[in-house]
Amino acid sequence: MKKEMFSHEISVLRNTFRRLLRRHAHTNLTKIIQKTHPADLAVLFRYFTDIEQKTLFGLMIEKEHTAEFLTELDEAILVKMLENEDPGRIATIFHKLGSNDQAEILNHLSEPMTNSILELLQKEEKKEVEEIMGYPEDSAGSMMSTDVFTLHKNTIARDAIQNLQDQKEAEMVFYLYVTDDDDRLVGIISLRDLVTTHPDKTLDNIMTKNVISVQPETDQEEVAKIVSRYNYLAVPVIDLEEHMLGIVTVDDVVDVIREEATEDFLQMAGAGKDREILLKSSWGNARERLPWLFASWVGGVAAVAIIGVFKDMLATTVALAAFIPVIIGMGGNIGTQSSIIIVRGLATGRVDIGNNLKIILKEIKVGLILGVLYGLLLGVFATLKFVNTTPYLGLIVALSILSSMIISTFVGTVAPLLFRKLNIDPAIATGPFVTTSIDILGVTLYFLIASALIPA
Amino acid sequence: MKKEMFSHEISVLRNTFRRLLRRHAHTNLTKIIQKTHPADLAVLFRYFTDIEQKTLFGLMIEKEHTAEFLTELDEAILVKMLENEDPGRIATIFHKLGSNDQAEILNHLSEPMTNSILELLQKEEKKEVEEIMGYPEDSAGSMMSTDVFTLHKNTIARDAIQNLQDQKEAEMVFYLYVTDDDDRLVGIISLRDLVTTHPDKTLDNIMTKNVISVQPETDQEEVAKIVSRYNYLAVPVIDLEEHMLGIVTVDDVVDVIREEATEDFLQMAGAGKDREILLKSSWGNARERLPWLFASWVGGVAAVAIIGVFKDMLATTVALAAFIPVIIGMGGNIGTQSSIIIVRGLATGRVDIGNNLKIILKEIKVGLILGVLYGLLLGVFATLKFVNTTPYLGLIVALSILSSMIISTFVGTVAPLLFRKLNIDPAIATGPFVTTSIDILGVTLYFLIASALIPA
Repeated sequence: MKKEMFSHEISVLRNTFRRLLRRHAHTNLTKIIQKTHPADLAVLFRYFTDIEQKTLFGLMIEKEHTAEFLTELDEAILVKMLENEDPGRIATIFHKLGSNDQAEILNHLSEPMTNSILELLQKEEKKEVEEIMGYPEDSAGSMMSTDVFTLHKNTIARDAIQNLQDQKEAEMVFYLYVTDDDDRLVGIISLRDLVTTHPDKTLDNIMTKNVISVQPETDQEEVAKIVSRYNYLAVPVIDLEEHMLGIVTVDDVVDVIREEATEDFLQMAGAGKDREILLKSSWGNARERLPWLFASWVGGVAAVAIIGVFKDMLATTVALAAFIPVIIGMGGNIGTQSSIIIVRGLATGRVDIGNNLKIILKEIKVGLILGVLYGLLLGVFATLKFVNTTPYLGLIVALSILSSMIISTFVGTVAPLLFRKLNIDPAIATGPFVTTSIDILGVTLYFLIASALIPA
Repeated sequence: MKKEMFSHEISVLRNTFRRLLRRHAHTNLTKIIQKTHPADLAVLFRYFTDIEQKTLFGLMIEKEHTAEFLTELDEAILVKMLENEDPGRIATIFHKLGSNDQAEILNHLSEPMTNSILELLQKEEKKEVEEIMGYPEDSAGSMMSTDVFTLHKNTIARDAIQNLQDQKEAEMVFYLYVTDDDDRLVGIISLRDLVTTHPDKTLDNIMTKNVISVQPETDQEEVAKIVSRYNYLAVPVIDLEEHMLGIVTVDDVVDVIREEATEDFLQMAGAGKDREILLKSSWGNARERLPWLFASWVGGVAAVAIIGVFKDMLATTVALAAFIPVIIGMGGNIGTQSSIIIVRGLATGRVDIGNNLKIILKEIKVGLILGVLYGLLLGVFATLKFVNTTPYLGLIVALSILSSMIISTFVGTVAPLLFRKLNIDPAIATGPFVTTSIDILGVTLYFLIASALIPA
């Protein structure tokens, strides 16, 4: 009886593999490969060198186990390994995969490699894969499984069960899809309802007629929302004539939800959207992160220019400089909080059309509450510390914190909502935009307030 | 045929409900409630006032539909609504729920309310709920469904199917669980394998023996990792004697993955961990966000103290002040990127024991690459702008950016790894800790470098 594959067990397996690799114990390696779950193998591959990966992949048999392993592998490793492999071998392994998995892998490979593999597939197979590759990336069409099981609504339950038993193709059957004379999807039956019903009943008497479906162009995030909201195991994908093209299954949706969350995180940090950033070289990694840092560099240069305008005031009141970090820090942090709350709210459906104004006002009120609190705290501190040198400093600092926190909640809330409306991913736009604009606004406000209150 | 329930359709439904509510059209409301999917109803409730919610809930019939609606409802709304409801009515609705859903709801209610409801449940039901409530929050035990379907390994396939057909309780049957003479879990069979096998075969000839299971105390995040890694529809929960206690199903795991991601986001922003923060009042919202802002306030006060030490140097070289925002900004941003990459890597299993050192070195190298690039960029800018006033400024700024970016990647990477090792949630600890310490380190480094290079 196997327990959870905890990190500890992965370490143990990794060491066993390493030992056998050092000894070139290929027979033992072949055995242990077959005994290891494909998903675990994919995790282990992260720890092996290029040469070790090549050796191990060479020892794998062209069967389901290896096919499943490929679907679980990180993209970066997959590409590196397959680009140097014999296309004939890849095509053999491909026979064990569904068209959606085939398309997913081919999408990552170079064009010559993709074409070589496609030429080696059977005509029918090739057509299906090319069709799926034609759908937009991250759409329902690109992730659907085309092995679906439909039956006419006049079929009786007994025949349906018989039919199901002869069905060897469809991998994960959760529901029976029921069609009418024009082959349109008209209903859905769970396996359980089918098995527990009277065998002479026709399907249209047992089926649920209210089928929620998606189109092949529907974004995967929308599909994930539907599956998670309605607790479905699969969603049918239909064309405009309501013919079934395929199904998207919950196991793929689980991956989408995890990946989308990770991408949102990375994008909000301006670290690109490549979930495999950890597998990249430092150079590749730096390149992903360069653009946002450039935005923050531009913001910094702008701040230099703004502060430059007030240099005479700074020269007479040096203490002003000491509060620059806290003013932009408090603003930046509360603004980031607002953005993150809104970006996640948009992703999970809690922020939606119709409640935007209410949410904006609420966030500004939060900025007001916390701005008054921290403005007072910092104002009192500034007064006590600098009362002899600059009598107005406490008031300047308090007002600056208050106004910067209110404006930051506003910018942090409105930016993602606005980007969403402009059809720009709120996660990618929010991070760089919000922090940079808050830096600039915070510094400007601070020095304007200071110049208004400090007698020239 | 119903298409996706897009935001637009939710708006339409919301307006229909509002119109009927204004007219007190209770018969129509009852009808439309029953026609609306419980999950959609739960979303709609976010837009209704307390009184509207009370009216609508009063119109609901004590059947499955209402029970499912309660499980989908946001916690804040659920508690508000049920605390003022007749315990008898709640108990009637509860009969339609599994023990895990009952326990989940009761965990949120006040003690007197919980006790009143528990007293009204049947003895058997009450015992089961109390057992589940005894498991730690967010554990496999607290989310498992106890209606499981096990059969002895010597059963033949035909009898197993017969048995399955008589089974009315178990809600979502994906797998048959097979037990031995001591009632221990020894194997698992998918419904499909069962239906497509020869009817006279015994279960131990068809079952997969390598069952991955969890214990009731296993954290829900670990359960989610297993389900998503191995593409399972359900994971069995077993006790130390390997007896089955229940199963955790994929639909609950989907919710966990979404919720954990949202919580990680909020915690990294120091905005608490309450996913329903948008439903809170501004005061409640501000209270959640206060602690991190306090950390950043403390960091700001520390920066004031540090800069205060160098006030004489600042007075002679005012231009130094202008670069404070960009130095802490670049450091803070690259450090946040590192933290987010590591926190997500820990959540998705890409960062694990055994590759920590490699990851830290790689991140430092990223800091070095980007530090050299932006150090040069800003150094040249500073030199050009201030060459007449402060000849060394370019060099000071360049070196400060470089060192602050290297140190920031180091702190941003090590902090979450360290917190994880200390069993502190890396997400909650990383946000405040990383930004505050980088603020302080950045300012200190900057002024130390400046005082070393500027002739006194």
